[in-house]
Amino acid sequence: MTMTNGASPLDDFRALALAPLPDHGAARAEAEARQTQLIKPAGSLGRLEDIALWLASVTGKPPRVESPRVVVFAAAHGVADEGVSAFPLSVNSAMLAAFREGHAAINQMCAASNVALSVFDLALDVPSGNIAVEDAFASSRATAATLAFGLEAINQVDCLGLGEMGIANTTVAAALYTALFGGTGADWVGAGTGVEGATLAHKADVVDRVVARVAGERDPLVLLQRIGGREIAAMAGAILAARSQNVPVVIDGFVATAAAALIHAIHPDAIAHCLFAHRSAEAAHGRVLERLGVVPLLDLGMRLGEGTGAALALSIVRAAAACHSDMATFAEAGVAGPA
Amino acid sequence: MTMTNGASPLDDFRALALAPLPDHGAARAEAEARQTQLIKPAGSLGRLEDIALWLASVTGKPPRVESPRVVVFAAAHGVADEGVSAFPLSVNSAMLAAFREGHAAINQMCAASNVALSVFDLALDVPSGNIAVEDAFASSRATAATLAFGLEAINQVDCLGLGEMGIANTTVAAALYTALFGGTGADWVGAGTGVEGATLAHKADVVDRVVARVAGERDPLVLLQRIGGREIAAMAGAILAARSQNVPVVIDGFVATAAAALIHAIHPDAIAHCLFAHRSAEAAHGRVLERLGVVPLLDLGMRLGEGTGAALALSIVRAAAACHSDMATFAEAGVAGPA
Repeated sequence: MTMTNGASPLDDFRALALAPLPDHGAARAEAEARQTQLIKPAGSLGRLEDIALWLASVTGKPPRVESPRVVVFAAAHGVADEGVSAFPLSVNSAMLAAFREGHAAINQMCAASNVALSVFDLALDVPSGNIAVEDAFASSRATAATLAFGLEAINQVDCLGLGEMGIANTTVAAALYTALFGGTGADWVGAGTGVEGATLAHKADVVDRVVARVAGERDPLVLLQRIGGREIAAMAGAILAARSQNVPVVIDGFVATAAAALIHAIHPDAIAHCLFAHRSAEAAHGRVLERLGVVPLLDLGMRLGEGTGAALALSIVRAAAACHSDMATFAEAGVAGPA
Repeated sequence: MTMTNGASPLDDFRALALAPLPDHGAARAEAEARQTQLIKPAGSLGRLEDIALWLASVTGKPPRVESPRVVVFAAAHGVADEGVSAFPLSVNSAMLAAFREGHAAINQMCAASNVALSVFDLALDVPSGNIAVEDAFASSRATAATLAFGLEAINQVDCLGLGEMGIANTTVAAALYTALFGGTGADWVGAGTGVEGATLAHKADVVDRVVARVAGERDPLVLLQRIGGREIAAMAGAILAARSQNVPVVIDGFVATAAAALIHAIHPDAIAHCLFAHRSAEAAHGRVLERLGVVPLLDLGMRLGEGTGAALALSIVRAAAACHSDMATFAEAGVAGPA
């Protein structure tokens, strides 16, 4: 992509969220017409019919998912120093190795579902700023660079699943939600990797410190710079690139939704190409999805991240596209329609 | 299998439902122990972890799904003469042809999800008795023959999805639910292929006539003989065979659940090897699942049948097994566990 010279490097990304999209009304109308002709009772595929029409609306083409891919961004967070996670920061690089060697949950999910997987290391050896006391990114330029990294992640994919990994990143996401939606840390934090009791209360306090530090800031992309993290910036960049390229996106869970929430805060229509894979067991996720006005596809009590919910949802999206595009019509199959 | 000579041919099937199963406690305990060692926060795969343990409990082996198959039974119902469906009876044979030629929704689902598919024609050219006025099956021997047909359907499968097709069969299933659970037809009927208003009220009246005709009958297998239908009998047979052979079963929707409800009525433990794929949009399905004490995996507003919900759920079951059996442990991957 070509970046214009804005007053801030972040303005280019704001412009991507606000850019008008081509009119895909014809493709959607064609899909709606075909839907009524397929050999099944009207409406009997339920949510899958909505998904097929959504694919047509986003892509401007007949619904088709042949190259689904989950992209996982991994990042290290200075706020882990505050003791907000049940796991040590060293888990980041060990998990990255596990992804690369095919040993993690998302590898099995993608293999079982025939979904491609890419994993990106966002400088795991250099944690971002400890947001309890400093900004996550040192500058708007650094923030923009990570957004741009995410922009590049969506090559050769016709439906993109977005996931993440990073010890302490549910704290980061909870801080973003508190800054975006109000309330206190206690409203938005959850178990993450498995904290409870005093540690959970401490996690809420850390979020309150973060939000007090950025008090008054309303600009979503400045909030991204100040709260982070790198994987959230990269996912936000990927969401914007997908929007520009008419690629449907399936958002994973609590942390991935934070990237979508930032883009939504720029303009609610800017996430119309995003489907939300599942309601995470992370306590506040359901309320976040309500704020975004979206209904998740699955509700399986998962809270792992890694794009695992997105991988499962991609299978359903692919099935919805296949039903829409490959079923016969009543006329083709010689099946009598409703009396 | 070897059938014993019972007083009624149906007694052999009752015995299958009541037969003690081998103790798979060791396999389950092994799976539980492994679960705690996998490189993820405890419990973070939610329902998928439950599914993995359920697979171990049913099979007596480590969770593994490599040969999933959806089996669809198609049957014709004399009660269609009562005008309870939005579609004519001729749709049955046309849909069977569509299944065989790969044109129906379930064909696309299975192809997209790499799940095998078998479709069985249960004498579509000879509708069962019109249950508003006569029994579905002419004899207990005919009922047993169809149950036995279903018994044979589960070869070469390590996880079985059960689905069906048959114009008017939501009326049959609603009649079974009314007979099993009480209330009136209006409590258990729904749109089926798309009836509403006066036709829906008529459908409820037909169910009331069926249930009045068999009033006082409590034996589940005699209810099967008197209310039907053939696809429900074949699915019930498949459920029993799977139980005997330690094969996990994924039950599709409103009609397939009727087969499970009959086996459950013989003994609640007899469907412990069954997972319920989804909550159908057919109005009463959620209440049926509550009566059975089960929580469906998906809730996507689907009400097509054909095993379509089961196909989607099989993908998730397969992913659950893959995560459990193929992820690395903390020790294998050199990942630090919780602090």
